[in-house]
Amino acid sequence: MNFKDKDIISIKDFSKQEINGIISYAKKMVPYAKGEKKTELLKGKVMSSLFFEPSTRTRLSFESAMNRLRGRVIGFSDPGGTSQKKGESLADTIRMADSYSDVIVIRHPQEGAARLAAEFADAPVINAGDGAGHHPTQCLLDLFTIHTEKKNIEKTKIVLLGDLKYGRTVHSLAYALSLYGAEITFVSPPSLKMPKEVIAECQEMGVEPTQTSQLEKAIKDADVLYATRIQRERFPDAEEYNRVVGSYIITNELLEQAPNELIVMHPLPRITEIDPEVDTTPHARYFTQAFNGVPIRMALLSLILGERL
Amino acid sequence: MNFKDKDIISIKDFSKQEINGIISYAKKMVPYAKGEKKTELLKGKVMSSLFFEPSTRTRLSFESAMNRLRGRVIGFSDPGGTSQKKGESLADTIRMADSYSDVIVIRHPQEGAARLAAEFADAPVINAGDGAGHHPTQCLLDLFTIHTEKKNIEKTKIVLLGDLKYGRTVHSLAYALSLYGAEITFVSPPSLKMPKEVIAECQEMGVEPTQTSQLEKAIKDADVLYATRIQRERFPDAEEYNRVVGSYIITNELLEQAPNELIVMHPLPRITEIDPEVDTTPHARYFTQAFNGVPIRMALLSLILGERL
Amino acid sequence: MNFKDKDIISIKDFSKQEINGIISYAKKMVPYAKGEKKTELLKGKVMSSLFFEPSTRTRLSFESAMNRLRGRVIGFSDPGGTSQKKGESLADTIRMADSYSDVIVIRHPQEGAARLAAEFADAPVINAGDGAGHHPTQCLLDLFTIHTEKKNIEKTKIVLLGDLKYGRTVHSLAYALSLYGAEITFVSPPSLKMPKEVIAECQEMGVEPTQTSQLEKAIKDADVLYATRIQRERFPDAEEYNRVVGSYIITNELLEQAPNELIVMHPLPRITEIDPEVDTTPHARYFTQAFNGVPIRMALLSLILGERL
Repeated sequence: MNFKDKDIISIKDFSKQEINGIISYAKKMVPYAKGEKKTELLKGKVMSSLFFEPSTRTRLSFESAMNRLRGRVIGFSDPGGTSQKKGESLADTIRMADSYSDVIVIRHPQEGAARLAAEFADAPVINAGDGAGHHPTQCLLDLFTIHTEKKNIEKTKIVLLGDLKYGRTVHSLAYALSLYGAEITFVSPPSLKMPKEVIAECQEMGVEPTQTSQLEKAIKDADVLYATRIQRERFPDAEEYNRVVGSYIITNELLEQAPNELIVMHPLPRITEIDPEVDTTPHARYFTQAFNGVPIRMALLSLILGERL
Repeated sequence: MNFKDKDIISIKDFSKQEINGIISYAKKMVPYAKGEKKTELLKGKVMSSLFFEPSTRTRLSFESAMNRLRGRVIGFSDPGGTSQKKGESLADTIRMADSYSDVIVIRHPQEGAARLAAEFADAPVINAGDGAGHHPTQCLLDLFTIHTEKKNIEKTKIVLLGDLKYGRTVHSLAYALSLYGAEITFVSPPSLKMPKEVIAECQEMGVEPTQTSQLEKAIKDADVLYATRIQRERFPDAEEYNRVVGSYIITNELLEQAPNELIVMHPLPRITEIDPEVDTTPHARYFTQAFNGVPIRMALLSLILGERL
Repeated sequence: MNFKDKDIISIKDFSKQEINGIISYAKKMVPYAKGEKKTELLKGKVMSSLFFEPSTRTRLSFESAMNRLRGRVIGFSDPGGTSQKKGESLADTIRMADSYSDVIVIRHPQEGAARLAAEFADAPVINAGDGAGHHPTQCLLDLFTIHTEKKNIEKTKIVLLGDLKYGRTVHSLAYALSLYGAEITFVSPPSLKMPKEVIAECQEMGVEPTQTSQLEKAIKDADVLYATRIQRERFPDAEEYNRVVGSYIITNELLEQAPNELIVMHPLPRITEIDPEVDTTPHARYFTQAFNGVPIRMALLSLILGERL
């Protein structure tokens, strides 16, 4: 597994074997991510953190990852004062960051922006989310979490819940889970169903996802319930929105229908999708999942900068 | 004195003995704060700096403190692009920072926010000001300044001037000075008097503060004149505001009424409260006081992270 | 050449010999700026980066420079949440930064702000652009680029193109090039001619610049074409703006009129001044020029902090 100078644009750029390698390497990073062990692996390296769209969780976990490896961070957290506002092309902004750093992390509202950035930069580029496009480090930390919590991904029964139509995270995840041959159920309101192309992709890899709008039934024998946010702006009608969102709130009462071992995941931030009463149950894994962003990003930064622990 | 993993929420969480210990330890930090000596005490540690309300002076002195100890800083300087804007609860934002760092510094416009944060974080939390609530590191740097400049706090005669009704800083300071049995005079316009509860607290500790609106008299035999900002929005009437503010401006002419040894302090930023002509007199101590924020915060970060110089 | 504790406010503060010394020292910094070599030269030092006006390229290259030398950075990237907004004077904000750091980098919309800052700070101050005033590090990196690419500055034939009336960059550059006795041609629309004072300054140093609005002719035997941005707001009439800007766009077709060795420079960001087709020709030097900001700023930070490589 050699990722030196590799761009990380989409989960589809990785084979299953490569993902396994990253997961296994990320596990080594955990004590360093927690600050229990110390390393100077990326001493003297500089990361550009270019957030053309705010995303506190993703940005801070990248910055924590770089700092835990003793590298340095420059950049911006929103596009407010950037040269883009003055009319500069994305290519020129990327070339600038390329001159000033060893690796570029980019978050951008437009699909394809990260791939474009990678074309113009000599330094490796990591896509930290490009609009309706990809968010590969989120997908990797999700897989890492399932692997860590459930020991393997292959035989896992997973329910993906929420806005499956527009949710970038769940499209990538459905693809990646199919790569592992996991058993997948999609639960969404009828108007926010998983797109046919994504389902076709799963099927091509030999996975036949179940589709339903019945959450209670779906979780009866599931290992993982992966919830996502349903955005109000997807609904023309506020009443309809409230009804739909209300019917998918994860509560302790709902979880009584599920196996004791079921874990609940969520990419966060959550708004009302998971009742805070769930936080203290053994089901809750969304905070662990958020932490896992640090070791996964440490692993990727280390690998593409060619410095192995 | 063991502060490892302790949250720093209010000055009232400390005994007089503990405050003395912090002050004495902070004095050791001074040459490191000035960059005259170097240390790697917090190498590998990460501080989250969460400013839900901008405060350049407080934020930069915390960041300088962490950097002087060779630790690292992640965070945000205003709530603009945070997940809170997307509707995330404070608890979830804090849990995120908790996952990504070893210590959390929080500034928040709402009273009680820091205490709440401490409940949800495993990592120690330092309150960098929570609205009308507390700002313990400001209070500690004030005490540190008085102790350094006047050799002791116990026998000091201190005039607290300005908006004593709403000024968070002076409430905490009145409490802490009473802990030391200092001699306190409150000078304010009648409409901005020190609240009765604060006075009662002083009295419980055996201190009987003097109250007056006559600044000239009050400073005649004082050791310290501590001025604070009077905010325009406290006055319904602009003319009344101008009259009040005008009557409390500290000038060289006023200071001729005071002992040569009187020192002038101010938490800064100042607007018109102190005439710039005072800056170059031996009375001025507000810039030294601002600098003292660095060694005090270095001391606290060092103590709660359990790494002693 | 001893620059310890020296403020860097204007290119006019330097003799030709001093500029040569800086250029020669900056060349040593190149492999460190690229991350090919590592150094801990500024370990333990803290730089305040005070951007009262956003400027991504300048800010990030200063931050990259400080990080490549293993120093630390605190500060703000726009004036949004600063105490200045609360009415604090620039002097007080500078004194704050002075307390918290070893060197201050300031960008400010008002001419003279950097010089004022230097008066109030004990730490050395670097002017990163003060409105219509100076931007000495831009000028130094321009000279560094010409020297590196053309081996010397003295005998170089340089065309300065664009908004010569309001363009801060070209005023400083015209001065500095005259110091070296370079051969200068000014190309601009009639309404945006180089001011007489600048021309008079060149003449005092024995240089007689040519003035023209004919770009094609001017570049026929030039070594360097230095283009700058023409801002729309300088023109009362949109049509006139479009005509002028259109007539000065640098394209491959235009460059066929120029010697093969002509290099094209631009302080960036560019909008439409240079056609992207030029980027891949051997003429393009604006990206190299942008990179050169890092070694030049590393050299300056190193010199004024008194730590030599």
